Amino acid sequence: MNKAVILLSGGLDSSTTLYYARSKGHACHCLIFDYGQRHKKEILSAKAVARAAHCAFELVKIALPWKGSALLDKKVNIPKHRKLDATNIPATYVPARNIIFLSFAASYAEALGARHIFIGANAVDYSGYPDCRPAFIHAYQSMLAQGLKTGVEGKTITVETPLIHLTKAHIVRLALKLGVPVEKTWSCYQGGRTPCGVCDSCRLREKGFQEANHEDRGRTSS
Amino acid sequence: MNKAVILLSGGLDSSTTLYYARSKGHACHCLIFDYGQRHKKEILSAKAVARAAHCAFELVKIALPWKGSALLDKKVNIPKHRKLDATNIPATYVPARNIIFLSFAASYAEALGARHIFIGANAVDYSGYPDCRPAFIHAYQSMLAQGLKTGVEGKTITVETPLIHLTKAHIVRLALKLGVPVEKTWSCYQGGRTPCGVCDSCRLREKGFQEANHEDRGRTSS
Repeated sequence: MNKAVILLSGGLDSSTTLYYARSKGHACHCLIFDYGQRHKKEILSAKAVARAAHCAFELVKIALPWKGSALLDKKVNIPKHRKLDATNIPATYVPARNIIFLSFAASYAEALGARHIFIGANAVDYSGYPDCRPAFIHAYQSMLAQGLKTGVEGKTITVETPLIHLTKAHIVRLALKLGVPVEKTWSCYQGGRTPCGVCDSCRLREKGFQEANHEDRGRTSS
Repeated sequence: MNKAVILLSGGLDSSTTLYYARSKGHACHCLIFDYGQRHKKEILSAKAVARAAHCAFELVKIALPWKGSALLDKKVNIPKHRKLDATNIPATYVPARNIIFLSFAASYAEALGARHIFIGANAVDYSGYPDCRPAFIHAYQSMLAQGLKTGVEGKTITVETPLIHLTKAHIVRLALKLGVPVEKTWSCYQGGRTPCGVCDSCRLREKGFQEANHEDRGRTSS
């Protein structure tokens, strides 16, 4: 019994998390979300990465009737060239996104009999989203222990965040070491033919590859 | 600013919770879920109750690709005449249901600028679901404080459970006092023309009306 549920967005971090969990011997079941994001490119990337890893995946469709984020609403601009160490939470924040994603992961884990959920949350080179921080992850796991049948039965479903304290450069090096098909991943908030290069996600990724002194084979993939 | 998000299933408890929140002066925004439950009757009831209360509502569709519950899988029988004080969790338990529902409520609340979420959870005359107990609700609220932008900004989104310590008889009396259109509510786990009378939900409701010494006008509604 070594099943794990992996939240997979198709970006570098979640793909690295999948390969990390796989390297630890978990039978990985990926969860991919179609939640009305601006473009479908990341969903295609997530599927491609799951297939490359020979792992099962499920696609969950969520129709959020409200907006409140640049990632859900094309009328709101994606910030460009934002200061990466800014302390304010950017317009790309989606209200309760990881809270929702983890809730489905918990349901799936319990239905599967999996005891581990992996999420590629990172709290070093990130955009300041509150639902990526260790304090949130700890609180989420405590809540699961109270709210799930598994918890009442004295068993634990853990929320694993192997990347949470890594820099983007460390994540790049780990991805390369684990054989992550970097060219299949997609990080850009826009859905263009090539990454925009100016959104937070592109710039954090670029910083990681530069600091790791490695070419990003995903930079020009379409 | 007195907006509230109300989780509304169309049953007696959530409908009473809506009328309670309304009586406290909240501008109520109801959330109704189509999550692949066995029948659509409760969704119709929820809409009817929201309309009767003159409150806004949103319907969120969730396609759960997994089962793991008698409420999601018609091949699994709904328990009949189950001992109501049984300590085991019945087959009608849906993995992480309230965890998922509350996660959408948190997202909606943040998008709306609402500071309150109401849920009709009850831990007295209930089926022993772990995600109805006070310890779970407290843990959920603590998690929200860590995971939401609202929390980081020092504001709180509270999870309100006005029914959690009430007996079913108390809930019936409160419903009648608040003018809840009991005849529009639907509690039965089955979707027949009339309630089955033998599932947990029917029997808890019947117990409540009997102890409150009041006829259930929803008992024969179709």
